[in-house]
Amino acid sequence: MGRETYWTEDPNPLLEFRQGLTLTDVDPGGKPGYAGNKADGQQALADGAEILADLQELLFANSRAAGDERRILLVLQAMDTAGKGGIVKHVMGAVDPQGVELAAFKAPTAEERAHDFLWRIESRTPGAGMIGVFDRSHYEDVLIARVRELAPPEEIERRYGAIVDFERRLVEQGTTIIKVVLRLSREEQKARLLERLDRPDKHWKFNPGDIDEREVWDDYDAAYQIALERTSTPDAPWFVVPADRKWYARLAVQHLLIDALEAMHLDWPPADFDVAAQKQRLLDEE
Amino acid sequence: MGRETYWTEDPNPLLEFRQGLTLTDVDPGGKPGYAGNKADGQQALADGAEILADLQELLFANSRAAGDERRILLVLQAMDTAGKGGIVKHVMGAVDPQGVELAAFKAPTAEERAHDFLWRIESRTPGAGMIGVFDRSHYEDVLIARVRELAPPEEIERRYGAIVDFERRLVEQGTTIIKVVLRLSREEQKARLLERLDRPDKHWKFNPGDIDEREVWDDYDAAYQIALERTSTPDAPWFVVPADRKWYARLAVQHLLIDALEAMHLDWPPADFDVAAQKQRLLDEE
Repeated sequence: MGRETYWTEDPNPLLEFRQGLTLTDVDPGGKPGYAGNKADGQQALADGAEILADLQELLFANSRAAGDERRILLVLQAMDTAGKGGIVKHVMGAVDPQGVELAAFKAPTAEERAHDFLWRIESRTPGAGMIGVFDRSHYEDVLIARVRELAPPEEIERRYGAIVDFERRLVEQGTTIIKVVLRLSREEQKARLLERLDRPDKHWKFNPGDIDEREVWDDYDAAYQIALERTSTPDAPWFVVPADRKWYARLAVQHLLIDALEAMHLDWPPADFDVAAQKQRLLDEE
Repeated sequence: MGRETYWTEDPNPLLEFRQGLTLTDVDPGGKPGYAGNKADGQQALADGAEILADLQELLFANSRAAGDERRILLVLQAMDTAGKGGIVKHVMGAVDPQGVELAAFKAPTAEERAHDFLWRIESRTPGAGMIGVFDRSHYEDVLIARVRELAPPEEIERRYGAIVDFERRLVEQGTTIIKVVLRLSREEQKARLLERLDRPDKHWKFNPGDIDEREVWDDYDAAYQIALERTSTPDAPWFVVPADRKWYARLAVQHLLIDALEAMHLDWPPADFDVAAQKQRLLDEE
């Protein structure tokens, strides 16, 4: 099991948000639990891809053939350029597309704004047997909404509790929720934005608004701090993943997914038909 | 361009359905246009995966940064075990999940049956910049619906024309439609069903109903023949892909996708902002 190579410690408890933790104390350049270098990490990611793909197929098979209601929801939150897209591409990209439901949440439309903030989220939650991925999520409604005052303070307040209730319901339905905030340093973001500006094949990813958001970086840190304190629960924990090293962030998120799937103790579902009789039907043809 | 290796001829015109072609004359064991063996084909598929991934990123980038409305819709139809799922996994799986919209159509729900047959289809058509894949499609409504008499004959008749009109509208909106029917021999299906029965890790994919469908194999051939004759248009052509060799079917579908994307002559969209000014903003910070 290549993914265990160079993990000196199970990273999950090292990454899990605990009350009392100050987000700005987390080193974005760190690689908690991992002793290997970039090349080791990339090899481990490739090894882990096969493990993850196999586990996903088991999850899918059990939902289709045995009525298993379990599913996974991975929530990704981060500042721009932190690597959400890279995680989708390099971690989820290794999984059969038939088993993944990806939802990218942009600024809400007029119709979405006319409903409760969870209306558009509910419709994109993953079905049984699926791995759902939220690229941004309902947390935007307590992050940018708080920083940019897109809703009154009392409405923001209400949302923390609404989120906890909503996620508890998903968990009760059979969803394993993994919430990840990628921690990027302001300096590394600057380097990544400059790289996008230097490369014509990256210009399409650049938005001048990304620089505006840097001016309220500390406000985002504060909004994240409050959001994690108010919505990290034993059933739907947050994980704070250092993201200045892209390879580490990908490996850590892959590890979280593999662990969640292994905790389900999945096996191939038994046939719900008489295997020998069906075989005979085929052999008796013609 | 590894994908050209061993292609002795452009397979697209060889695979495209032409009026006058009898489907049952197509050899499911063939590999039109390809002189290589299985190992060559697998290598070509791996090479093509990178080409396809790069082209998809260009398509996506142009929709996001330049308002390009173009998109692709791949329609996959086939008998069970023909390899639709393998194409999704091995051809589409190489593409960034953020650029793929996959829709698998099962038997319609009560709500779906209460609407026109195209109602559920319309809502799953791909957005600008995306590659949409239909695993089964609106064609089920003239295939199984015809074979199993799920709708009156005059309603089936009506649907052919409705499909042509519907697809013409998608094309006018900027969709390149690629419709693929995988041709599997009845003998090869038998072998694949027996393999599923022999392997406990494949039992979940087996359905006794699959054997029932074999009893009306010729009726399906006839329904496919009529469907292709009535709905193959220059704008939304059908391709008949031999599928007894899984590797060939995957390679051929990948080739169709790559060709469609290359025909778009995509390049990186120009920046819609002043690159030097944005760079200066970043460098002037602090």
